[in-house]
Amino acid sequence: MINNLVFTIVKYLSITLLLGSVAPAQEREIRAVLQQQQDDWNRGDVRAFMDGYEASESTTFVAAAVTKGSAAVLANYLKRYPTRDQMGTLTFTILDVRPLGPEHASVIGRFHLKRTAEGGGDKSGIFTLVFRKTTAGWKVILDHTNP
Amino acid sequence: MINNLVFTIVKYLSITLLLGSVAPAQEREIRAVLQQQQDDWNRGDVRAFMDGYEASESTTFVAAAVTKGSAAVLANYLKRYPTRDQMGTLTFTILDVRPLGPEHASVIGRFHLKRTAEGGGDKSGIFTLVFRKTTAGWKVILDHTNP
Repeated sequence: MINNLVFTIVKYLSITLLLGSVAPAQEREIRAVLQQQQDDWNRGDVRAFMDGYEASESTTFVAAAVTKGSAAVLANYLKRYPTRDQMGTLTFTILDVRPLGPEHASVIGRFHLKRTAEGGGDKSGIFTLVFRKTTAGWKVILDHTNP
Repeated sequence: MINNLVFTIVKYLSITLLLGSVAPAQEREIRAVLQQQQDDWNRGDVRAFMDGYEASESTTFVAAAVTKGSAAVLANYLKRYPTRDQMGTLTFTILDVRPLGPEHASVIGRFHLKRTAEGGGDKSGIFTLVFRKTTAGWKVILDHTNP
């Protein structure tokens, strides 16, 4: 009886510790990827920014249309933001990070681009990301950004 | 040597069979949930439609703003689609279903609402869903629909 109780308590504590230690590590790593993307963008380096996405044909960007493949996503970024003025200064605000099992997570956030009038003016919106834990770290595999 | 080879082949075949049988079952079940939602909507039953979402405070709807909790998501649907005319006839077109581990999946698709002029006219857009396998079946836990 006492043994069962001790066993239950130890099991409960182990699960609590496990959840308490694994989930924040995921979230910390994911937040670091987004911070790195923000820094890369603000250095004007779209290719480094793209490193936050998984380099894969299945990586998908959803806006007014669906773009499939990281190469096509990069091409769109280079086309839509050809100059430093058009890139502006990016700020991500993370609203929610939710683990989806041990190897995936969803992130909801806002982006804000501070830009000069010549750059097209300020721009902001909401996005949902799906991250996957790859051998190269956590990477975005799906990005739905309001058009 | 031969034993190792046989073992490798058997392992490879097992994994192939496993992936080949599990993933389509997931996808079939998820497509059935969306078909049911479409049917419920087209019967004018918003509450039955909501059964496709997980009844949970963490269920989230992202459009121009973020709505958290299935009760708030339902309230929004009831407010935005108060009449049968405004609900119109819904058609989902599924563009992509991607497993995210054994208990989650993402879905990209389009919705089209065929409506009379009095109902507000036709309306369509793109969505990304995250599904979770719950004890009550596959349910939407995150819906990002272009505003």
